[in-house]
Amino acid sequence: MIIILQPHATPQSVEYRQLMDYLTNRPNIQTRVHQEVGALQTLTEIYLIGDTASLDQAEIEHQPGVERVVRVSEDYRILGCHQDDRRPTGFDYNGVLFSQNTLNVFAGLCAVDIPAHVEQMLKALRDNGQVCTRMGAYKPRTNPYSFQGHGKACLPWVFELAGKYGIKVIAMEIAHDSHLDEIREALEKTGKPTGVMLQIGTRNTQNFELLKIVGRQREFPVLLKRGFGITLEESLNAAEYLASAGNRNVVFGLRGMKTNMGDPHRNFVDFAQVPVVKRLTRMPVCIDPSHSVGTRERAPDGLLDVMHVTAQGVVAGANMILVDFHPHPTKALVDGPQALTLAELPWFLEDVAIARAAYEKRRLLAEREARKSDK
Amino acid sequence: MIIILQPHATPQSVEYRQLMDYLTNRPNIQTRVHQEVGALQTLTEIYLIGDTASLDQAEIEHQPGVERVVRVSEDYRILGCHQDDRRPTGFDYNGVLFSQNTLNVFAGLCAVDIPAHVEQMLKALRDNGQVCTRMGAYKPRTNPYSFQGHGKACLPWVFELAGKYGIKVIAMEIAHDSHLDEIREALEKTGKPTGVMLQIGTRNTQNFELLKIVGRQREFPVLLKRGFGITLEESLNAAEYLASAGNRNVVFGLRGMKTNMGDPHRNFVDFAQVPVVKRLTRMPVCIDPSHSVGTRERAPDGLLDVMHVTAQGVVAGANMILVDFHPHPTKALVDGPQALTLAELPWFLEDVAIARAAYEKRRLLAEREARKSDK
Amino acid sequence: MIIILQPHATPQSVEYRQLMDYLTNRPNIQTRVHQEVGALQTLTEIYLIGDTASLDQAEIEHQPGVERVVRVSEDYRILGCHQDDRRPTGFDYNGVLFSQNTLNVFAGLCAVDIPAHVEQMLKALRDNGQVCTRMGAYKPRTNPYSFQGHGKACLPWVFELAGKYGIKVIAMEIAHDSHLDEIREALEKTGKPTGVMLQIGTRNTQNFELLKIVGRQREFPVLLKRGFGITLEESLNAAEYLASAGNRNVVFGLRGMKTNMGDPHRNFVDFAQVPVVKRLTRMPVCIDPSHSVGTRERAPDGLLDVMHVTAQGVVAGANMILVDFHPHPTKALVDGPQALTLAELPWFLEDVAIARAAYEKRRLLAEREARKSDK
Amino acid sequence: MIIILQPHATPQSVEYRQLMDYLTNRPNIQTRVHQEVGALQTLTEIYLIGDTASLDQAEIEHQPGVERVVRVSEDYRILGCHQDDRRPTGFDYNGVLFSQNTLNVFAGLCAVDIPAHVEQMLKALRDNGQVCTRMGAYKPRTNPYSFQGHGKACLPWVFELAGKYGIKVIAMEIAHDSHLDEIREALEKTGKPTGVMLQIGTRNTQNFELLKIVGRQREFPVLLKRGFGITLEESLNAAEYLASAGNRNVVFGLRGMKTNMGDPHRNFVDFAQVPVVKRLTRMPVCIDPSHSVGTRERAPDGLLDVMHVTAQGVVAGANMILVDFHPHPTKALVDGPQALTLAELPWFLEDVAIARAAYEKRRLLAEREARKSDK
Repeated sequence: MIIILQPHATPQSVEYRQLMDYLTNRPNIQTRVHQEVGALQTLTEIYLIGDTASLDQAEIEHQPGVERVVRVSEDYRILGCHQDDRRPTGFDYNGVLFSQNTLNVFAGLCAVDIPAHVEQMLKALRDNGQVCTRMGAYKPRTNPYSFQGHGKACLPWVFELAGKYGIKVIAMEIAHDSHLDEIREALEKTGKPTGVMLQIGTRNTQNFELLKIVGRQREFPVLLKRGFGITLEESLNAAEYLASAGNRNVVFGLRGMKTNMGDPHRNFVDFAQVPVVKRLTRMPVCIDPSHSVGTRERAPDGLLDVMHVTAQGVVAGANMILVDFHPHPTKALVDGPQALTLAELPWFLEDVAIARAAYEKRRLLAEREARKSDK
Repeated sequence: MIIILQPHATPQSVEYRQLMDYLTNRPNIQTRVHQEVGALQTLTEIYLIGDTASLDQAEIEHQPGVERVVRVSEDYRILGCHQDDRRPTGFDYNGVLFSQNTLNVFAGLCAVDIPAHVEQMLKALRDNGQVCTRMGAYKPRTNPYSFQGHGKACLPWVFELAGKYGIKVIAMEIAHDSHLDEIREALEKTGKPTGVMLQIGTRNTQNFELLKIVGRQREFPVLLKRGFGITLEESLNAAEYLASAGNRNVVFGLRGMKTNMGDPHRNFVDFAQVPVVKRLTRMPVCIDPSHSVGTRERAPDGLLDVMHVTAQGVVAGANMILVDFHPHPTKALVDGPQALTLAELPWFLEDVAIARAAYEKRRLLAEREARKSDK
Repeated sequence: MIIILQPHATPQSVEYRQLMDYLTNRPNIQTRVHQEVGALQTLTEIYLIGDTASLDQAEIEHQPGVERVVRVSEDYRILGCHQDDRRPTGFDYNGVLFSQNTLNVFAGLCAVDIPAHVEQMLKALRDNGQVCTRMGAYKPRTNPYSFQGHGKACLPWVFELAGKYGIKVIAMEIAHDSHLDEIREALEKTGKPTGVMLQIGTRNTQNFELLKIVGRQREFPVLLKRGFGITLEESLNAAEYLASAGNRNVVFGLRGMKTNMGDPHRNFVDFAQVPVVKRLTRMPVCIDPSHSVGTRERAPDGLLDVMHVTAQGVVAGANMILVDFHPHPTKALVDGPQALTLAELPWFLEDVAIARAAYEKRRLLAEREARKSDK
Repeated sequence: MIIILQPHATPQSVEYRQLMDYLTNRPNIQTRVHQEVGALQTLTEIYLIGDTASLDQAEIEHQPGVERVVRVSEDYRILGCHQDDRRPTGFDYNGVLFSQNTLNVFAGLCAVDIPAHVEQMLKALRDNGQVCTRMGAYKPRTNPYSFQGHGKACLPWVFELAGKYGIKVIAMEIAHDSHLDEIREALEKTGKPTGVMLQIGTRNTQNFELLKIVGRQREFPVLLKRGFGITLEESLNAAEYLASAGNRNVVFGLRGMKTNMGDPHRNFVDFAQVPVVKRLTRMPVCIDPSHSVGTRERAPDGLLDVMHVTAQGVVAGANMILVDFHPHPTKALVDGPQALTLAELPWFLEDVAIARAAYEKRRLLAEREARKSDK
């Protein structure tokens, strides 16, 4: 059960203390307080754990300082979208809004290679009005003898270049807590010219120790990708590890499932789950068309499969797109064959805009229908 | 290797006989002639089987009566889309055009139950400008003790009602060659008030004996659904069974794959394969959102998952939609929980139209880009 | 609910008529009578369908002529192994016993090719004391342009050769009801020199129309293979189609599941399900190591993977083995690379015998333990 | 390419230096030296990386101090079993031998709970002649709100109890490098009364950063479990991460794949891969029947499925068994329903012994057959 307090009912207030006294007297109930600090006000929530079935919801709702009470289901206590749960979704990071209603494109390099390529990429993004990107410094690779990314060595110049071209958020995979420290340090040394969204890859979706450590910090938001051999429910539970450790600024990423039933695509595209994740949780949903498809194959209508599946995610309400571009795909150190070129960037963005406009139209139509059936 | 003849080079022509003489003299080559009778003209194609590697393509192209020569890859010889293969896709049936460029909606009952329901459904379709429907008379069910459909008993009145409401094509599953005979007979007895597209379900995708028998007739087009435990390639090979037996009027249907990785959807939606099938073959591609999703769950934006995945298929170029409706879903004998209601039909069609318009826009944009890069 | 009658309570007896009168007076109950004709006596069972929950089991058990009453669970009403179900498993066919306690090896040719090969195979079997074999006349192939088996043309000489070498049962796949007719006819024409177990392959596991037709005859027993894209439960339900149509002489075959998670084996070996099928149903369980593994790869201990997985099935109680041999694997028309050679036949049989002896020992040990814990 | 040196050719020897000089002069070749310190002698191997194709194998084999040269395939350079690779498999740890020819049973608690249970378990093991066990202190759980294991707090008393009952090796899962430090510290504080085999669970199979850190130490051997959504090849590549970082004392564990095709078992048992792993690599192979099956279901022959799949692994040559026992399964904090009881321990061990004896017999038979065909 979650008690959402009125804005003025801060932990310092009289109402808060009275409410806590009231709750302390209930048997077998523990409380846990979470504060979400926003630009204008701070939201306080009290999580009740234990024998909450015995509590009288209406009685609690009448306590002073209480705005609303939500009964949570067992799963995804914090990130879940519970019955009659009208709490807003999403968060603001470094001036960019992430929610179930927004759409952010993170085009960029799968793996950072040389400064010239990074700069060409970032310049193209700025010239096309983009403020987000993806840049991989740490690359978990199946084979231990493959290139594993430049690691912390490249962070300072990548961050500085990002700042130069007005990039607000870089999605960057980490695979160990030391990577988090290295990113934090490099950002501080360079004067925080940009922001970082920590990306947890599909191989680490159930690396719970990493999730707990990443969840304990609230400086960086987290993009958690779905694990490829597990059910959606298990991956959503992994996201809850981040939230239960303290960090709720989590985006959930779909990236395809590994099975030959999806051939000739590299993975079995799972973007039909976009509306499912939005129904079960309050997380914004990201799609990764590049790793799902894995090739530059093209349909007879001239559109690349990567663009088709992107449109599929967007037309169903996806909130973030992680997509591989490269100035010279043949020179890319990782996953070159699936990358789009810089010349294709404006086309890609326009294609996304068409799908997004269709989604908006569909949503308005659904609202109109809902009003009709309410009458 | 396929030799496509000029329209006038019919089997009765001099050119044809000369060409055949020429081919007969090539060692280890067998020929097989296929004629596609259209409204305005008849297209003749000669398939060469055997040691075609030794043939001189240019030399054949210079023979009189030859329009074009296409070297076929091993897979999907007839239905495949081979290199530099510019042959048109699709076919016309009972006044309705099916191709990789069209979109036809087949809304209807998963299983025929009572005449009143069928009539309500058909009337709603007519009132919404539809000329196609789905109506299941033969229902393969996992459990032998479940309702198996009304079978041939319902055919006459279903066909008559269809005629009454201007339905041109009914998609109807068959599971044995006797069903084909029953449908043909019922249509003849009722004076062919409508047309039938024979549907082969996912449990019979590799029922090759059925495919051969259905492929030997050319009266009815066929909708072949993807098999759920096999690769896409294997399902496309199954389609080729129909064509190799003589019937090329085949639509290929995606309907989701059976794996718990797709939970909570009933199946793992595979509509990302729409552009793949259009690239590998010349078949129009159908999507079945109802059986893929299997529920009426709704995203927070008010749209049903069934509508979201439909839009995903359409925005990527799907050519046919098979979708379950029912006047009273709770009274449906099969798959009621996933059916849309008649009140939702106009909404559904409008939602589809938005996604289709987006697809058209995306296609035009791709053409513009192609022209750009040609320059 | 199943009422098992005492041997003397035949449909002609007084007890039978009294019992039927009693049952007719129960509301909403339908009866269905099944007779299993054995060598010594005939077993009569009455299946009750409808509102059986309202029946008093003890009361029925006290009716004259009633031996025992078994409450069946919803699934696998006839073939299922229900609570306190002590009915014997298995059946006798042409002098060979098939049950959950026996083990029969069906070594033979995946596909019949030439008489010389068939005869060499059969001779080797006889010389090694075998009376069963596999011989494929109808071969469903993924690609329509592949060899599809010699079909009915080869049946007469195959049956005659089988008779010559003392073969009692040939497992032979059929894919259409016409194949059943052709086999019956060929057997009759040749004077029934051997017997046939009809095999339904994995592509037709849910070809329910074929199952119904095959189930309606009781001359030939049936080997139903598990379907590769469906759950075990769904495949067991398919077996129930055969039984509900009348034929209970069904062996259930495991043959691996199609997924790249089983690589480098051709399929993901599923023989861990042997004890599961024996627990859920009363069917003998067959394993097909050849199609599961698909290669002749060998472990460092010198044993072929095909032999290893065979031993795995047998040590857990498998009742039948379907395995590919060929006098000249490189000349085999289908699946040559996985076939064992005739020189390997004695080794294979000895290897199977070791695993079977281990199973018998394990079973005796389990019995001893059960007696211990009963005390 | 690997150069295996003669025992006397240590890095201090003249031959070694001569060889290194020789190699230094080859263009584009880097060397990496690995020493395996055994009880009687130290084995030195030189790994050549780079343009090894240009090297003359025979020439190198004739250099002084060289025992043998093995050309490695690209995959699993260190752990792989390459062509003509006759190097011994396995290793000795704390007096226990692990190889592709041995069999060690690790029965024990899935999760450590209270000292009384641990002691009862260990006493039962000692009384049955066992010197290995499994004891989980760190438990990665799908749900963040589930019990996560007692962690480092329980290590001292678990190690001391193990020592008291003569346990030589405890298999213990770790999920973060800090766990490795905690284990090392607790062992040192308690005077190393026992040994630990570090277990990497299926959720961390591709947690490459953890593998690198664990691979850098050579004090503890490692049991790496197969990842559940990835191919076998990818999991074997993960094992190579350990070896490439320096630790070759790796056992590879099969534990079933997550897919509903394996229902009603918890996972799809993959023990058919035992011979595959032994063919592709030089690692001993462990099976985990408890997590594969996940229940105590029993076949009609009285044997538990857990015992059946164990026998399947063993009869095909498995080298290690990880199996859950508990003195009071209903009181177990994790996975109680699948645990065997202490009363079942002697039965289980006897059942394993039967399967192992069968394997040994099969191996001898294979050797006899090999000799036959050599003649």
